[in-house]
Amino acid sequence: MPSLAYYLPVEAKPPRLQDNTGDIDRLRNCLTDRLAGIDPVVPFDRIRQVAEGFRGSGFKGAVVINDMPNRPELVDFLPAPPRVLPGLALDLGTTHLEAGLVDLMTGKTLAEANEVNSQIEFGADILSRIHFAGRGSGLDSLHNAIIDSVNMIATRLADQAGLAPQEIRALTVSGNTTMIHLFLGLDPYHLCREPYIPLVNAPDPCRAKELSLVLHPAAPVWCLPSVGSYFGGDLIAGILATGLANSPDTCMLIDVGTNAEVVIGNKEWLIACAGAAGPALEGGVAKMGMRAGPGAIEHVRIDPDTGKLDITTIGNVRPRGLCGSGIIDLAAELYLARIIDIRGKFKPETGQGRLIKKSDGYAYVIANGDMTADNEPVVFGQVDLDAVMRSKAAMFSILTTLVNQVGLSFEDLHQIFVAGAFGRHIDPRQAIVLGMLPDLPLKTYVPVGNTSLSGARAVLLKRDARQESMEIVNRTTYIELNVNQEFMNRFSGSKFIPHTDHTLFPSVPFFNDA
Amino acid sequence: MPSLAYYLPVEAKPPRLQDNTGDIDRLRNCLTDRLAGIDPVVPFDRIRQVAEGFRGSGFKGAVVINDMPNRPELVDFLPAPPRVLPGLALDLGTTHLEAGLVDLMTGKTLAEANEVNSQIEFGADILSRIHFAGRGSGLDSLHNAIIDSVNMIATRLADQAGLAPQEIRALTVSGNTTMIHLFLGLDPYHLCREPYIPLVNAPDPCRAKELSLVLHPAAPVWCLPSVGSYFGGDLIAGILATGLANSPDTCMLIDVGTNAEVVIGNKEWLIACAGAAGPALEGGVAKMGMRAGPGAIEHVRIDPDTGKLDITTIGNVRPRGLCGSGIIDLAAELYLARIIDIRGKFKPETGQGRLIKKSDGYAYVIANGDMTADNEPVVFGQVDLDAVMRSKAAMFSILTTLVNQVGLSFEDLHQIFVAGAFGRHIDPRQAIVLGMLPDLPLKTYVPVGNTSLSGARAVLLKRDARQESMEIVNRTTYIELNVNQEFMNRFSGSKFIPHTDHTLFPSVPFFNDA
Repeated sequence: MPSLAYYLPVEAKPPRLQDNTGDIDRLRNCLTDRLAGIDPVVPFDRIRQVAEGFRGSGFKGAVVINDMPNRPELVDFLPAPPRVLPGLALDLGTTHLEAGLVDLMTGKTLAEANEVNSQIEFGADILSRIHFAGRGSGLDSLHNAIIDSVNMIATRLADQAGLAPQEIRALTVSGNTTMIHLFLGLDPYHLCREPYIPLVNAPDPCRAKELSLVLHPAAPVWCLPSVGSYFGGDLIAGILATGLANSPDTCMLIDVGTNAEVVIGNKEWLIACAGAAGPALEGGVAKMGMRAGPGAIEHVRIDPDTGKLDITTIGNVRPRGLCGSGIIDLAAELYLARIIDIRGKFKPETGQGRLIKKSDGYAYVIANGDMTADNEPVVFGQVDLDAVMRSKAAMFSILTTLVNQVGLSFEDLHQIFVAGAFGRHIDPRQAIVLGMLPDLPLKTYVPVGNTSLSGARAVLLKRDARQESMEIVNRTTYIELNVNQEFMNRFSGSKFIPHTDHTLFPSVPFFNDA
Repeated sequence: MPSLAYYLPVEAKPPRLQDNTGDIDRLRNCLTDRLAGIDPVVPFDRIRQVAEGFRGSGFKGAVVINDMPNRPELVDFLPAPPRVLPGLALDLGTTHLEAGLVDLMTGKTLAEANEVNSQIEFGADILSRIHFAGRGSGLDSLHNAIIDSVNMIATRLADQAGLAPQEIRALTVSGNTTMIHLFLGLDPYHLCREPYIPLVNAPDPCRAKELSLVLHPAAPVWCLPSVGSYFGGDLIAGILATGLANSPDTCMLIDVGTNAEVVIGNKEWLIACAGAAGPALEGGVAKMGMRAGPGAIEHVRIDPDTGKLDITTIGNVRPRGLCGSGIIDLAAELYLARIIDIRGKFKPETGQGRLIKKSDGYAYVIANGDMTADNEPVVFGQVDLDAVMRSKAAMFSILTTLVNQVGLSFEDLHQIFVAGAFGRHIDPRQAIVLGMLPDLPLKTYVPVGNTSLSGARAVLLKRDARQESMEIVNRTTYIELNVNQEFMNRFSGSKFIPHTDHTLFPSVPFFNDA
């Protein structure tokens, strides 16, 4: 099962008077048998290099083949098989890029890195970037910014592996639909406007030089296909990486990034939806929220009897703010310590001295200024809590709507894969307490890491995976929640801890003291 | 059987929430059924235009499809089917370009033109151009010159048809192997050096913009494949145009351009060779030679009794020189009037006053200065005659060698197609007298015109023809005469009029008075 690009050692008989076919034709002839009988294409702008390499090496060496969907492309001739043939797998996130440099022949990882998406200067979230793209040369600015970021991460990775970026022979990109549009320089205008239509879901692969990337000019650039505006290639990557589409048992995949994207299915069917449940859970909305990184409070415990607070920070350094898992932890502990009520409102008489009244309502002091990294106190206010309540309500409503759509209940789910930083850091028990995730045995929840990146890696290395990604797109039924009345109704009912119908969460203590 | 590019009217359902696939995907989906179930490719640099056209026309209009060998390419979206969809068929000759602008949908000719190959300033013949290509930026100069010439003829043709050159949607090119190399910017170095290997015989199609052509940037450029260095796509075009490869009877095709190229075969087999027999016959070598055009003497009669000379010029104007057919006519008449002997040497005592002695030998005066267009006498010298003798000897040797190669005799040939200006103007009877063409009934000889151009037109308009051209290449056995001893021996024997073995030409009077 070939990688997106690979090499084949080759040795041809030198030309003679009795065998005087052209150089390129000679080379193609001796490859056809090895390419399942398909004569490879030599793209026009590669003929010179291939012919010169072939002749210059005495008709012996290695060809580089791009495994294109319709017909293999012969793009280079090397005097000998290279030590490694590097390829790049890229998770193109709205805020961050995460990438792995991989040997296309062995699958071995050569280097890994991440990089800020430099589009951030034009807008923090997808919606603001789509609007920015519509103004003047906004689209070009966003396109150039993301190309710069990809070039930066490719150069760093090559450097780490002792290679030149021009040696990178293939790139696979997994990202949400907006990011893929901006990466390809395509207008995202209709993505956020009813009926939410991408310009393209499954773009044909292009070449690195068409995008001014620093990779080898003939390197194929293969973007994971999307299902719709709000269901991107990053989630297709997740379905691939978790094996959801081949599972005999029904499973669920939850990926919380800028949106919460959810898929449920098995080898027979796949159904998916997405909704705005993410930012608060990513630490992006709450005032004290931050991305998981040094100084982020990731765990919180409050003694329900004494109100004593214990916190753990990433890197065990002085706290700077709260990351997503810290926020979930805090909200759940505040509820269990009865400092907030079932509506998620602070109860003024509680908090053991940590509850203060500010101009915009009550706030809980997690750390005073003398305890923090930047001498600013870390506090969590009613406004932040309200955002968490909306997010958790949205998440549970999404999950319920989706499960109901196929006539199942949560108990029918064999496993729930939780992707991304959210899945890596969150304590599912605390999410259950809040009523964000269904009240299932904890072993149901499986953190699966950055599946956008592992899916990108799979399609980089396996034709099977590339074909499967297209099949997944065709098999997936997408439900548009923006216009789903059931979702709207459920959303209102979920704005309580754990839920208006507390029998849905038998393991969570119910304190009806609102 | 589709043209190389064509349009299809299309109307898609507008997107809605319940049908929210991407624009490009939607368009592709409604085409797949009409393209034999094959999902078309949208090349990266066409996505924007196609999507904008599709949406801008309310999801209704016409797509332009390039009929690529592996998979159809969707390259444009027009608001309505165009009045005509122009394509260009080009005969790319060493000295001249001849082209036709054709409606790709109906096959109707829109305009015709010819143009000098502006590479001529860098060298008159193929060999001098290959040498020029090897010096400094010689290859670039030759490539740019031919691109300029093609752009010039395309612009003229478009102009004649009331179109812009950017509206031309496809180009097919038929030329000898060297011309195709220079057209594509490929190094012709090895074409003229043993073992005479082209860089490529069957290049994959490229796009107009890759060659800086003035046509539509996405127009496919399809070159007829060649068999070898001396057997180009122009002759493959000839085989296509004459139907030789499908003929139940064995036929022969003779194309005299810079080289004499000959094919013999039928639907079972094809065998071919080429050799330097051309220039004198094209009027390119003799001092008074010229291309067939106004003022060229095309027919000559000499009364064997009185020596009285009658000439006819093209356009019935005052003579300027002799074209190929005029040269053949003159040499044959000089023999029949016994002014030259069987070795092709002037007999000093003959000529009825028209034979003069010059510093480089005898010469025959065809027209005195007071009779000609430029007041310079038109004379034909021994040097010119020697060149004709070499050419005619080469031609007959090529034909004999080829026929012997397959164990046939000339009498087995059903028809002999004579292509090009040579075929159009030559009197086969006179060529038989000279011993250049075999002594067969005159009805065997069929002038077929510019088959390089008609073949280019066929591949422009029919996929069948494109496929057949590739099959012809694979089916054709090419014999390299440069190293063929039989050819060399025959060549010596053919340097007499009509031949050392005059029994080969029973219809020709034999005067053994050398």
